[in-house]
Amino acid sequence: MSVKKIGIGIVGLGTVGSGLIEIIQKNNNIYKNKYKTDFSINGISAKNRNKKRNVSIKGYKWFDDPVKMTELPNIDIIVELIGGSDGLALKLAKESLKRRKYFVTANKALIAKHGIKIFELSQKYNAKFSFEAAVGGGIPIIRLINNSIIVGKIKNIYGILNGTCNYILTKMRENNLQFNKALKEAQNLGFAEANPKDDINGTDTAYKLAILSNLAFGINTKVSDIYTEGISKIEEIDIKMAQKLGYKIILLGISNLKNNKVMQRVHPSLVSNNSMISKVDNELNTIIIDDEVADKIMVVGKGAGKRPTAASIMADILNIHDENKKKFFVTKNKKVSSLSSKDISKREGRFYIRMGVDDKPGVLADITLFFKKHKISIKSMFQLDNKIKNIVPLVFVTHKITEHKISLVLKKMKALKKIKTKIVLLRIEEL
Amino acid sequence: MSVKKIGIGIVGLGTVGSGLIEIIQKNNNIYKNKYKTDFSINGISAKNRNKKRNVSIKGYKWFDDPVKMTELPNIDIIVELIGGSDGLALKLAKESLKRRKYFVTANKALIAKHGIKIFELSQKYNAKFSFEAAVGGGIPIIRLINNSIIVGKIKNIYGILNGTCNYILTKMRENNLQFNKALKEAQNLGFAEANPKDDINGTDTAYKLAILSNLAFGINTKVSDIYTEGISKIEEIDIKMAQKLGYKIILLGISNLKNNKVMQRVHPSLVSNNSMISKVDNELNTIIIDDEVADKIMVVGKGAGKRPTAASIMADILNIHDENKKKFFVTKNKKVSSLSSKDISKREGRFYIRMGVDDKPGVLADITLFFKKHKISIKSMFQLDNKIKNIVPLVFVTHKITEHKISLVLKKMKALKKIKTKIVLLRIEEL
Repeated sequence: MSVKKIGIGIVGLGTVGSGLIEIIQKNNNIYKNKYKTDFSINGISAKNRNKKRNVSIKGYKWFDDPVKMTELPNIDIIVELIGGSDGLALKLAKESLKRRKYFVTANKALIAKHGIKIFELSQKYNAKFSFEAAVGGGIPIIRLINNSIIVGKIKNIYGILNGTCNYILTKMRENNLQFNKALKEAQNLGFAEANPKDDINGTDTAYKLAILSNLAFGINTKVSDIYTEGISKIEEIDIKMAQKLGYKIILLGISNLKNNKVMQRVHPSLVSNNSMISKVDNELNTIIIDDEVADKIMVVGKGAGKRPTAASIMADILNIHDENKKKFFVTKNKKVSSLSSKDISKREGRFYIRMGVDDKPGVLADITLFFKKHKISIKSMFQLDNKIKNIVPLVFVTHKITEHKISLVLKKMKALKKIKTKIVLLRIEEL
Repeated sequence: MSVKKIGIGIVGLGTVGSGLIEIIQKNNNIYKNKYKTDFSINGISAKNRNKKRNVSIKGYKWFDDPVKMTELPNIDIIVELIGGSDGLALKLAKESLKRRKYFVTANKALIAKHGIKIFELSQKYNAKFSFEAAVGGGIPIIRLINNSIIVGKIKNIYGILNGTCNYILTKMRENNLQFNKALKEAQNLGFAEANPKDDINGTDTAYKLAILSNLAFGINTKVSDIYTEGISKIEEIDIKMAQKLGYKIILLGISNLKNNKVMQRVHPSLVSNNSMISKVDNELNTIIIDDEVADKIMVVGKGAGKRPTAASIMADILNIHDENKKKFFVTKNKKVSSLSSKDISKREGRFYIRMGVDDKPGVLADITLFFKKHKISIKSMFQLDNKIKNIVPLVFVTHKITEHKISLVLKKMKALKKIKTKIVLLRIEEL
């Protein structure tokens, strides 16, 4: 069997790009033997040519304009690692496919927004397109959904999709840290970026959830249709109280199919210490697929980092001669549609509510009476002894109730003068 | 796009075979739409035609001799669900491939013993061959190893591979049951077969481990080379003591690559309550792949049962037009070889040791002195108060030591008259 030559163009030379170069350098001989394919990097491009990098780029042909690479006959694959949902990334996708190059990307913003369009282009031009690294870092979730969970009907898909948030919440819990300190630690160790906004506020999780929902349910999600709450409001006291109640607080992305409607949401959630998902600590990610035939399948792995993410990209590259079916995004399901973020009001669940009240006799009775009057059924209540400036923290856990009901009642509650702090509302998820 | 017609012959109509018929009946219209393929069952066969079954087989063409089906032009896929490592199953594999039928099987004994030979035949005749359901029931582990974990080098692969044993150990722990009672419960609920020998004694796990090792390391394992211990010796007291020490007892299959040698073993193991694997309860299975590039990837799902296992077979069927690379078993790694089961003596680890001793003063001191004399370093020791007939149970936890050393010392220990029961030795695994 003769060895095929395959040329790669890499656009974007940050952590993941450098990792990819290292993998190809180290393993190319193994791939030659195993897959009868000789991969060579025939072009590279990045914003700044002279930036200090961990890997030497001297031996590779540099392009100021990466789009030029799509015109070269010795480049078969364009790997896009620059990010951004539009602009150059989108242009590269279009030009690559138009010229029948295999387009490989790790760009979740691009795929969340334009994945279906790019897929249609890849069909039109009979070119390949993969994005394993866009969701779950080193977890091969895209391939799992496209090649394996194809028999029945997925009912729910959810998980921990952001390693930065999971790391921060783990450190807050383990080391009794405040959010800001845990964030700083994560930044120092490279688990959070200098500008962590998209991670912290849930946007990154929403991008990934949109991609998973589109694949699982055959819909076309607008990211703005996903109800999204970040983790910056989580305080030490909530982490501790959750622990006392037998829960951990984690940031989940959740997508449920019910009556042909898909509800998507991203928010901090209290999950039982007995659940498997509560053991997924630090920078690990997990995705759970709940299928009517295969039942629940859970995958856990490194959600970020140079090597795991680069491994997902390399798996895409190595599959260049395989997976001809291209079934993803193909089956737009006309019956199924995405709800808007406002529809979360219809969701039913249990809630954790925390507030600070005046340390005066009768206040607790007043609050419980208020809940009773508004027909909020309370499962358990805690008055904590860590009083600050005469303000006593109270924690309530409700029975099942709709989001609509609880938000109406909390709005009214805010007007009560006895309540001296903002009211923290967290969702309890039974997974 | 026109719809392709694909004929299926099913051999073996037990739980999984019936499940497969149900899935095809229920979903065929969906598959027609989604995959442009019309699957029809054009032949069935089983040992007993008139057995009572959950699914009606009236409408399907019956074959007393299933090998006849491989000769039919309207059958493209043979699904083998009869079991057995040789005999009819092997014959069906050979005849199917020879006639260029796609051979799909759930038969772990067959694949563990003849997988590589069958793969070579499939190469020779340019026919397809899949066995997703042979390991991990509904967990798509074969496809994961063949399509995704292909970038780096797998260092370790291990997991809970037998749902029956995991169910029994869970029930022993949760309900304080003796082994025999938990087994009976498992049988009543359909989680254990009438003859559960191969499950209980670890053979089933060894078959699956052999398949995983062959795929992961490119070796050709003899199942007899796998050190195998079952779970029937586990007593309630061990489950309880393990819990007190912060462990759960689970049956693991473990395969480690070190210096180009693969050590494979199946035995009950104490794993920390803090580990993710300790949360995989009841009939769930899990497999952890530890790869030098992708790091650890863990998959959890239903390891047995009609629908999950049938789903894996159906996934094989639906991939009929895909996955042309056929890379599994292809890369026989000449450098790497399998150790024999005796080589477990080189393994190093911590141990849990339980014995019953005379309830007399000085006995404890004598035993600890014995350990000291033989240079077995003890990390912790417990004398339990549940004395039976004047025999006191003692539990020791060792520091790291080789299997060779501990078994030599225990052999000598057996001669001590103060020890009134057999000595139970269990391995502690740090995963």
